[in-house]
Amino acid sequence: MNGLLTDLYELTMAAGYFDTGKTSELATFELTLRRLPANRNFALMAGLSQVVEYLLNLSFTPEEISYLRDLPQFAGASPAFFDYLSRFRFTGDLFAVPEGTPLFAGEPALTLRAPLIEAQIPETYLLSAITFQTLIASKAARCAAAAEGRPVVEFGTRRAHTPEAGTLGARAAYLGGCAGTSNTLAGYRYGIPVMGTAAHAWVMSFASETEAFRKLQRVLGSATVHLIDTYDTLQGARNAAALGGPMWGVRIDSGDFNTLSRQVRAILDEAGRQDARIMVSGDLDEYSIRHLVSAGAPIDSFGVGTQLATSADAPHMGAVYKLVEVEICGIKRFTAKYSERKPSLPGSKQLFREAARDVLSRSGECGKGEALLRPVILGGQLVEPLPTLENSRARAARSLLALPPAMRQLEIADPWPVIHSRELRELIGQTRNNLPV
Amino acid sequence: MNGLLTDLYELTMAAGYFDTGKTSELATFELTLRRLPANRNFALMAGLSQVVEYLLNLSFTPEEISYLRDLPQFAGASPAFFDYLSRFRFTGDLFAVPEGTPLFAGEPALTLRAPLIEAQIPETYLLSAITFQTLIASKAARCAAAAEGRPVVEFGTRRAHTPEAGTLGARAAYLGGCAGTSNTLAGYRYGIPVMGTAAHAWVMSFASETEAFRKLQRVLGSATVHLIDTYDTLQGARNAAALGGPMWGVRIDSGDFNTLSRQVRAILDEAGRQDARIMVSGDLDEYSIRHLVSAGAPIDSFGVGTQLATSADAPHMGAVYKLVEVEICGIKRFTAKYSERKPSLPGSKQLFREAARDVLSRSGECGKGEALLRPVILGGQLVEPLPTLENSRARAARSLLALPPAMRQLEIADPWPVIHSRELRELIGQTRNNLPV
Repeated sequence: MNGLLTDLYELTMAAGYFDTGKTSELATFELTLRRLPANRNFALMAGLSQVVEYLLNLSFTPEEISYLRDLPQFAGASPAFFDYLSRFRFTGDLFAVPEGTPLFAGEPALTLRAPLIEAQIPETYLLSAITFQTLIASKAARCAAAAEGRPVVEFGTRRAHTPEAGTLGARAAYLGGCAGTSNTLAGYRYGIPVMGTAAHAWVMSFASETEAFRKLQRVLGSATVHLIDTYDTLQGARNAAALGGPMWGVRIDSGDFNTLSRQVRAILDEAGRQDARIMVSGDLDEYSIRHLVSAGAPIDSFGVGTQLATSADAPHMGAVYKLVEVEICGIKRFTAKYSERKPSLPGSKQLFREAARDVLSRSGECGKGEALLRPVILGGQLVEPLPTLENSRARAARSLLALPPAMRQLEIADPWPVIHSRELRELIGQTRNNLPV
Repeated sequence: MNGLLTDLYELTMAAGYFDTGKTSELATFELTLRRLPANRNFALMAGLSQVVEYLLNLSFTPEEISYLRDLPQFAGASPAFFDYLSRFRFTGDLFAVPEGTPLFAGEPALTLRAPLIEAQIPETYLLSAITFQTLIASKAARCAAAAEGRPVVEFGTRRAHTPEAGTLGARAAYLGGCAGTSNTLAGYRYGIPVMGTAAHAWVMSFASETEAFRKLQRVLGSATVHLIDTYDTLQGARNAAALGGPMWGVRIDSGDFNTLSRQVRAILDEAGRQDARIMVSGDLDEYSIRHLVSAGAPIDSFGVGTQLATSADAPHMGAVYKLVEVEICGIKRFTAKYSERKPSLPGSKQLFREAARDVLSRSGECGKGEALLRPVILGGQLVEPLPTLENSRARAARSLLALPPAMRQLEIADPWPVIHSRELRELIGQTRNNLPV
């Protein structure tokens, strides 16, 4: 399963490793955040669950192998290589930072240790799975922080980069602090609270707005959220308020939310509907949420779509997957890349979170604080069930609260200190001096 | 299949439509580009193939229905509604603009006509599928234009918003003008040329760069592309040039490409390797490609990843899916939305492409030029096989060449004129005057 969901060069390298007798070499790769996403003080780790599912199921079907065999790039590959692929399973180890952990520039999120080919092929999938969900979780955490306790609901599947990305994005948004999602499949798959009532089409499908509202209330009862901006927002508010009966409240999807929410609040209150709540949606992000909250707009809940589901101001993140060590017949060789502006650090590592800094050390070193890279898969087997999504979400909330308050603000704060241990610094120096040419 | 891959409100509305006896109403929805993506002169239609696959397979499993039944939002839904869902199939009509067609602001890409519930549920999936691939195809067309005939290869799956988005993005990038992709699954599924040879890990896994290069050549022969920037780009070029034997050429993945490509070219030429080509990759987009091309850098091919796979400067697009007419017992009612800054136009439409403008008219009107909205699914059945990806790619190339040259430049040009027919203007006026309240 998913054997071909990788860049071709991972597979041509696999053929090359096989051909050159490197199948018994044990490789360690690290997936590292080279830089934080734009405008972010932290990156909230997410996507591990998908990585584990991928590694435990990674394989090649006969049709996939037959496809590879016919590619010109594999003209020189041996028949034994394709036999090897047909039996391919991931038999190695995965160490990972738990989902819901804030990470910073230069920090590893995953360590993969496996026979070279098995560690090479997953590169493409792992990078995409981790960076995407991490981007969305990080953005969600910012939106939730800006809302200061008011629920933020993820509404963005229609803007996501494929519907599947919308579903995984909904997962990451919940992990990062959203209260729920509009994506029904995400609710079904991941147990996330799902929310939503009606769109403009509902209102337009009836001859009058009042009739549309009355019928919706009949179906949804106290879960009803009347969408009041189809024709005229204030008239919509009056129509909703006039109906009586149970409803959650109203939703405004366009216009100046600060002004409209006050006018709508007044209309609802005047009609004795102090119980009816106001949700706003439409082109929101953490900055507009903060603006509305600090202006004191009477808004009870925010629906965030496009900006969250695409992490629009930071739609990508500079993470890399680099070989850090190779072990042949028990002898380790440390590897690093020293190309301009894109270096990588040699050796398998551990990351310790102390009270006011992180220490990146060599694996096996003792350290203070929490050791963040933990065994997840050993010898191709899951060590123990992953934390539930609820637990990861709680970890995110707890970990973010432990950061200096300035890092939870929307503006760029002083970076969290990440220092290298003495042993790691020594290894970096030694490796640089022994650089191959 | 995929019944839950939609926003919850599509399903609560479905329950409401069912409950209010609207199942026999025939609805027409349009998926319209409200605005072009940022920095774009056109949006290149893509994603139709996935839309068709979705509509032809849309259904609900018993487990999915059971999940819905237990949600609080469906507490008031009738048992008959869940029976209806268990038999749900799309039985309606889809009209669509062919893939590879440039579209402009205010233009419809799809028209769905079906019983109201069947037309409502697909909203979320359709918007995501069309806008994502359209964004990527449009970005690819810009990169290809900037490269002025040099091949541009899509390298971005690792940066895409999920690996699956990377695969569909590779499809869209090829449609938009890329020469191939690094995504192997995209090659397998869609027949796209796949490219790629080796990463830095290959070089680092050997004790010397020269050994790594020699071994790669043994496996890949004339397909070999030596990645020369692991340690020192110029020394890497010398190592590659010294080897002799067949190779495609070298790839530079970091540094100042304008300077390095000239230096590397000189090294290769001096070694008598005029046949060896130079590819560059790493943080490229259409602007940096144009810069390198206009500077005369001796670059033969460009690999574009992050910026293309995420459409980074325009990661989303303002498309909407709006109800434009409802037909009950043969009587049509035209619908529109007049909310601030987010209006929609009533009535089913046709889009005619003339030599120097588009005319948006009512469906059934005669028009000059090519009628772009064509029947794809009628009565739940595919009318004829969709064009092949190769044909859609050729249509894209041809259609873009037919645009004024300024629209193929990277900067914003005068917009392509999109006018409304007299009949459509009359309908807009009538509908506004008969607005429900």
